[in-house]
Amino acid sequence: MIVQKYGGTSVGTVDRIREVAARIKRTRDAGHSVIAVVSAMSGETDRLLTLGRGLSEKPVERELDALVASGEQVSASLLAIALGELGVSARSMLGYQARIVTDAAHTKARIQSIDGELLRRLAQDQVLVIAGFQGSDGDGNITTLGRGGSDTSAVAIAAATKADVCEIYTDVDGVYTTDPNTVPSARKIDRITYEEMLELASLGAKVLQIRSVGLAMKYGIPIHVRSSFSDTEGTIVTREEALLESVVVAGVAADKKAVKITMRHLRDEPGVVAKVFGALAEANVVVDMIIQNVSVEGHTDLTFTVSEEDERHAVEIARKVGEEIGVKEVLANADVVKVSIVGVGMRNHAGIAAKMFRLLADEGINIEAISTSEIKTSCLIHAKYTELALRVLHDGFGLANAPGEGA
Amino acid sequence: MIVQKYGGTSVGTVDRIREVAARIKRTRDAGHSVIAVVSAMSGETDRLLTLGRGLSEKPVERELDALVASGEQVSASLLAIALGELGVSARSMLGYQARIVTDAAHTKARIQSIDGELLRRLAQDQVLVIAGFQGSDGDGNITTLGRGGSDTSAVAIAAATKADVCEIYTDVDGVYTTDPNTVPSARKIDRITYEEMLELASLGAKVLQIRSVGLAMKYGIPIHVRSSFSDTEGTIVTREEALLESVVVAGVAADKKAVKITMRHLRDEPGVVAKVFGALAEANVVVDMIIQNVSVEGHTDLTFTVSEEDERHAVEIARKVGEEIGVKEVLANADVVKVSIVGVGMRNHAGIAAKMFRLLADEGINIEAISTSEIKTSCLIHAKYTELALRVLHDGFGLANAPGEGA
Repeated sequence: MIVQKYGGTSVGTVDRIREVAARIKRTRDAGHSVIAVVSAMSGETDRLLTLGRGLSEKPVERELDALVASGEQVSASLLAIALGELGVSARSMLGYQARIVTDAAHTKARIQSIDGELLRRLAQDQVLVIAGFQGSDGDGNITTLGRGGSDTSAVAIAAATKADVCEIYTDVDGVYTTDPNTVPSARKIDRITYEEMLELASLGAKVLQIRSVGLAMKYGIPIHVRSSFSDTEGTIVTREEALLESVVVAGVAADKKAVKITMRHLRDEPGVVAKVFGALAEANVVVDMIIQNVSVEGHTDLTFTVSEEDERHAVEIARKVGEEIGVKEVLANADVVKVSIVGVGMRNHAGIAAKMFRLLADEGINIEAISTSEIKTSCLIHAKYTELALRVLHDGFGLANAPGEGA
Repeated sequence: MIVQKYGGTSVGTVDRIREVAARIKRTRDAGHSVIAVVSAMSGETDRLLTLGRGLSEKPVERELDALVASGEQVSASLLAIALGELGVSARSMLGYQARIVTDAAHTKARIQSIDGELLRRLAQDQVLVIAGFQGSDGDGNITTLGRGGSDTSAVAIAAATKADVCEIYTDVDGVYTTDPNTVPSARKIDRITYEEMLELASLGAKVLQIRSVGLAMKYGIPIHVRSSFSDTEGTIVTREEALLESVVVAGVAADKKAVKITMRHLRDEPGVVAKVFGALAEANVVVDMIIQNVSVEGHTDLTFTVSEEDERHAVEIARKVGEEIGVKEVLANADVVKVSIVGVGMRNHAGIAAKMFRLLADEGINIEAISTSEIKTSCLIHAKYTELALRVLHDGFGLANAPGEGA
C-alpha cells in the first residue's frame, strides 16, 4: 500500500494530470495498492480566495473552507477521470467521504480520525483519489487543514491505512543540504531523520509541511519526497534507526523571517521577564530566541526574536508591558537572519557549536544571538551575511558535493 | 418561508453576488425565512466540463458529477460570505449536507427525498444557501440533476420545507406570451397555470426547467419567475383555481428543434406501425407528432417528428425497421418548425384549433402536420414561416399589448 501525494504544480494542467495518472498506473501495475492525495491545481486556491476576499475583508471562516475545498474536489475528480481513461478503476473521495474527521477549527483544523479500514478495503480494487487539505467536522461542516495541509492529509491517511510509504511528489527532486540557489555545492540528501527534517522544515526547506513530518514521526511512516517530473529517487525521511549512520550535520538552513525585538533598560527583578513572555504567549506570539544581557545597576536589555508575521503584534505587546515595567525603548530589527546547522549526530559530538562560531568568526560575521537544541545550533546574524554564512557552514561541515560530482 | 433560486448570470460576478445578498437581506428584513438555491457562476460549469473532457472523451459519470458539483459549492459559499459581510447570519449547504438524496443515475439523477424538517428548522435563525443541481445518492456519492437542475432543486426544497413560494431569479423579467425578439407586441404574462407553463417550457420558453414545473404542480408550490436585476413583479406560475379567469390562449411558442421523418411506401397492415414506434421507444427516441396518409393500394406514407438530437438515431432505426417492412425510402427534413398555441381555456372553447388553421392559411402558410392536446394545438410548418406564424397567431389570439402600452 502506497500513499502518493501530488502538489498543485503536479496537477497544474490537464497534461500534468495525465502524467500523474500514468505514474499511478505504473505503481498499480507493479502490484501496489495506491491511494493518491491531491492538492488543488496550482493557482486555483488563490483564485478562490481572491473571489472570497472580493466580498468580505474577513470572510466567515466556515464559508472560506467550503469555498477553497472545492479546489481539491476539482483536481481529485479530474485525476479519477484521467485514470478511468487509462482503464484504471478509480474513485475520487472528498474529506467527508473518506471520513476524515477534524475538529471544528475552520481554516486550521486538526485531524481527529480517519476510517483507515474503509480506505484500505476500498483501495484493494481501485485507486482512491482523495482530496487533500480538507476534512469534515463532527457536524458535517467542511473544514480545511491550513495551507500545505495536503501533506498532512497524505501522511495521516498513510498512518490510518498502515501504508508502507507516503510519497510526496513535488516540483523539486528532494531535500537539499542547503538552498542550492545560494550554495552551488548543495547536495540532495538521500536519507534524513524525522527530527532533522523537522528542524529543516521549520527553517524554510519548504518541500514538506512541518506538521506532516511530526505526524509521520509519531506513526513511523517513511516519507519519500520526490519529483513528479522524473523517476529519480528523492529523499527518504525516516526513523534514525533506519539510517546506517547518523551524520553529524545533515543540513544548513537560513530563516529570513526572523525579527529581532529589543526592550532597552528593563528593571532586572524577578517576575519582570515572565510578565513579558506571559503576555506574548497569551497573544499566541511564538518567541524563538531569547537573549538577556548581564545586569548593570539593576537594569538590563532583553532581546528576543519572533517571525515577521508577528512583528507588529509583538512590538505592541512589548510596548504595552514595557510601560508597566519601566522600559525606556522597544526596538524592532527585521534586518537579521537565523542560520542553523541541523543533525542528529550532534548529540554525540562535542564541539560542533564551537566549530560553527569559529567558521562564522573567521569570515568576520558577528553573532547577535545563539540558540541551541539537541540536534540544532542557530545563530542570529546580520541579513547581509546570509549567503556567505550558508556557504561557509555548508562546506565547512563537509556537506559539499564529493569531488567529481560537480557543483 | 421563501425559497429563492438564483441562476448563473445572477451570481456571475462578485458584484452580482453582492446584489443578490442585498436582495436576500431585504427579504429577510421583511420578516421572511429565506432559503437561497444557487447555480454555478455563469461559464463555470462549461469550464469544468472542458477540463474533464480534455482528459477523456467519455469521462466516468460519477467523477463528472463530483467535478461539476464544485461549481455550485463555490457560488454557495461566496453568497454566504457576502451575506456575512452584510451582517446576515448565513450557512452554505451542499447537496449531502442538506440531505438531498437522489437515485444513483449520475449526471441525470432524480431527487428521492429532502430533509425538509431540518432545513425549516435551520432556516429560522439563518439564511441557508444551498448548492443547486446536486444531491447525494444512498452511498454518499455526489450526483447531479442534469443541466438546469437548480430549478428542480429549488422547487423540491420549497416542497419539502412547505415554503409559501419559490422565486426563480433569472436574467429576463418573466414569461412572455411569445418570443419578444420575434414578436414586438409580446407581453409579459402576470399569471399562468402549471399546465400552460409545462407546454410552453417544452416548446422553448427556456426560463424554467420543465421538470421543476411538474414538481411544483405536484406539490402546489407557486413559482414566481422574475428578474434579479429589478424589483418588478415577474410571472407567477400557479394552480388554475388560483387564477381569477382562465385565458383561452396564454402563449404562442415555436419549437425549432423538430425534425420531420417520412417513411415512404409502407405496407398498410396491422402491426407495421407498431413495429416502427416500438423500435423507436425501445431506443428512447421521443416521437412527437405522427401523421399517416390514407392508404393507396395497400401502401401508405408514415410521417413523424423527433427532436434534432434524436434525428440520426431515429433515421437509423427507421431505415433498419423499414427494410423488414418493405419501405422504399426514409427522408429526414429539419427545415420545419412546430408552432403551438397554449391555454387552459381551450378546454371550454370550441373552434380554437380551427381559428389557428385559418390564421395560418390566410397568410398562405401550409400546415404539414397537426397535433392537439387538451390545452395545446400545434402545427408543423416550413421553418421559413416561423416569425410570420408567431406574429399572426400572437396578435390573432389577442395577446398583443393593450393600446398605449407600446411595443
